[in-house]
Amino acid sequence: MLAVLRLSHRVFRDKRISTHLALTARAFGADEFYYTGEHDSHLEESVERMCNEWGGNTKVEHIESPWGFIEQWKNSGGTIVHLTMYGIDLTDKLFELKQKEKLLIVVGGVKVPGAIYELTDYNIAIGNQPHSEVAALGIFLDQISDSKARKKRFENAKNVITPSEDGKKMEKIE
Amino acid sequence: MLAVLRLSHRVFRDKRISTHLALTARAFGADEFYYTGEHDSHLEESVERMCNEWGGNTKVEHIESPWGFIEQWKNSGGTIVHLTMYGIDLTDKLFELKQKEKLLIVVGGVKVPGAIYELTDYNIAIGNQPHSEVAALGIFLDQISDSKARKKRFENAKNVITPSEDGKKMEKIE
Repeated sequence: MLAVLRLSHRVFRDKRISTHLALTARAFGADEFYYTGEHDSHLEESVERMCNEWGGNTKVEHIESPWGFIEQWKNSGGTIVHLTMYGIDLTDKLFELKQKEKLLIVVGGVKVPGAIYELTDYNIAIGNQPHSEVAALGIFLDQISDSKARKKRFENAKNVITPSEDGKKMEKIE
Repeated sequence: MLAVLRLSHRVFRDKRISTHLALTARAFGADEFYYTGEHDSHLEESVERMCNEWGGNTKVEHIESPWGFIEQWKNSGGTIVHLTMYGIDLTDKLFELKQKEKLLIVVGGVKVPGAIYELTDYNIAIGNQPHSEVAALGIFLDQISDSKARKKRFENAKNVITPSEDGKKMEKIE
């Protein structure tokens, strides 16, 4: 069980970044994508449309506040990982994290409250340089699955790519 | 020698995605970041500002057209990798790509021309699902360096993070 929680989404400023986060979550096998901040039906529809075309059924849901949600995850035996450039490098905790069966990955938005660092079980950095929460999430999910998540096959896909060395090969299934 | 070329940047629509691409390129050790499409001084200033604060001096440059630029890279012994969900999975070419000394990574924008698939030496997928060029670039650069690029130290950094399990530890160097 793998879920992602994106904090403090802003409809205007973050729409593409949050959509990239949700699609990365889906592509690498996350079952659920939650977000706090402003409610955004376009974000939800983008992911739904992607699932219709490319398969799977990643759930996307807006939640009002992260606090009760994170507590609930903890109480149900889940492990909470916060991705932050201030954390311990993933390499140092990778083996430990691979053993976890229920993971919630928290991805910051603008100004993450200090309590998030304390509430979560791990503060994990993908390097200690500022870059991108999308790159961080992608690398985390790729590493945690030993790059196997990339090979995931999605149920009910209408579009299926055949990998190609020099062009686009896609089958449309009606 | 590692460079990234982002195709078809649009100032309004792509500003945050292209900035995330450039910062990801910088954080994982790319020396140069080029882009085609609309010229964007904000994008260039963002990366410059980041280098001032966090060190290094990743060059960012707008180029008019990708064609001559790619040819020139080829002629000078460089290898061109195009990241695309239609390509061959990175796993299958990783060993081969690690041997290359001069790499240009091409990252698509909206509607990549077919000739790009033919001109580049490799069309590489980070999974064959639609997700994010930022996640794809991050995973590519992380894998190609065996996750060592993340540990890169930047010269002349004013901000230096000490990795922490439960908060933010950053030194300001004047």
